Amino acid sequence: MSYRFLKGHGTENDFVVLPDADGMVHGDLSAERVRALCDRRAGIGGDGVLRAVRQDDGWFMDYRNADGSVSEMCGNGVRVFARYLHEHEGEPFPIVVQTRGGTKVVTPADSGYTVDMGSPAVLGETEVGVDGRSWPARHVSMGNPHAVAFVDDLADAGSLLAAPDHDPAVYPEGVNVEFVVRRGERHVAMRVHERGSGETRSCGTGACAVMVATALADGAPRGTSYVVDVPGGSLEITWTHDDRVLMTGPAELVAEGETDL
Amino acid sequence: MSYRFLKGHGTENDFVVLPDADGMVHGDLSAERVRALCDRRAGIGGDGVLRAVRQDDGWFMDYRNADGSVSEMCGNGVRVFARYLHEHEGEPFPIVVQTRGGTKVVTPADSGYTVDMGSPAVLGETEVGVDGRSWPARHVSMGNPHAVAFVDDLADAGSLLAAPDHDPAVYPEGVNVEFVVRRGERHVAMRVHERGSGETRSCGTGACAVMVATALADGAPRGTSYVVDVPGGSLEITWTHDDRVLMTGPAELVAEGETDL
Repeated sequence: MSYRFLKGHGTENDFVVLPDADGMVHGDLSAERVRALCDRRAGIGGDGVLRAVRQDDGWFMDYRNADGSVSEMCGNGVRVFARYLHEHEGEPFPIVVQTRGGTKVVTPADSGYTVDMGSPAVLGETEVGVDGRSWPARHVSMGNPHAVAFVDDLADAGSLLAAPDHDPAVYPEGVNVEFVVRRGERHVAMRVHERGSGETRSCGTGACAVMVATALADGAPRGTSYVVDVPGGSLEITWTHDDRVLMTGPAELVAEGETDL
Repeated sequence: MSYRFLKGHGTENDFVVLPDADGMVHGDLSAERVRALCDRRAGIGGDGVLRAVRQDDGWFMDYRNADGSVSEMCGNGVRVFARYLHEHEGEPFPIVVQTRGGTKVVTPADSGYTVDMGSPAVLGETEVGVDGRSWPARHVSMGNPHAVAFVDDLADAGSLLAAPDHDPAVYPEGVNVEFVVRRGERHVAMRVHERGSGETRSCGTGACAVMVATALADGAPRGTSYVVDVPGGSLEITWTHDDRVLMTGPAELVAEGETDL
């Protein structure tokens, strides 16, 4: 059976989009098919699959990780998903996306698309380490756990082939670790080690956690915007007066076709 | 400008195929476009591009490496290329493919497609090393240089993140290093470190060099076939009575579509 797909990315976090408006093409999308699609050599390749299913109240983003597991939400993926809905399904903005992590609203912006990533939980100070060096880090939750460490140079984090050292009492289920340097006024750059994935080109919730930690360190008033450079591009992030984190970034659709994977 | 592409692989050595029969779609295909297509996050992803251009005497396989550089031939790529010509351009077998490395003839086989990889040059004994351990190795040229080392366990070669130690007097331009274990009668398995690429899922010339070194070690008569397992699959290789190395392996086309990369 041959079926349609698109390939796209947001700051080089990349996805296979599967159009399935009526839910009839893929039914219960199998973990095996997700792994075959995401395989970077034998398949199309991607960090995950975004299956688009129409519902009474909008569209459901059925997000799967490359290993086939179900996931709640993906901040880079939802921008790609919204661009697909706008350009290929004729949906007008603002676009409402149902996810396992709740309803997300995506709006267009000068530099891409904006999505409300929710409220952060600012927790205590902790510590992370790499290759025998260690740094103080801010514990921020964006629904998932982060440790944000300011470093002198992004190269200080080394190869990041292994998970950075962290306090298992603070992070019993592991942690996403961000290393941050200043680039200028309201402008930082980061590298991220994602639990389970290793170092990645971009992590949406990680960039939000970095912005929150930086705004706190700067004593910046709510409503201030920061540019957060990730290895795969740039995100603009605002922590609003009503305690929401808005992330704006690019979404690209680079190919469209048919596959029988 | 939007144009057609296919994605395929042979033992997980993967390629973007660009149909360009009249040479009018891509003209002088730029290195920049090749890099954009082969980018595994921001593009479609591949180890290289196979552009198909019709010539008076058959089809030319314009092969490019993922970094945009021009390459002569690719044993896994030419099978994928032949399958494309057969299924999408209606070419009957045997299929004649012009490459920068000469004319190649591809024929169908039970387990895929067979291509004549040319004559090996069997050279001397040398030595390779990893992490302070070293092994004797056979120097075999398949047009490009190989060092074939028999090991007790493929894990002995370690992470293969760096090029194995080798004799620069023997290999002034670097070397592809294969580590080999016995799997059974006329059956071996290998890992390969390709110069310039690191460890890969498959290397066609490497598998041929391994077969030649193994046949010599076994004193096997010409015409004997070996199965060579690579991380991405299996290849069947025969060193013929007239000193040619025939490689048979799978070729898969997994997706077809349009891109404007």
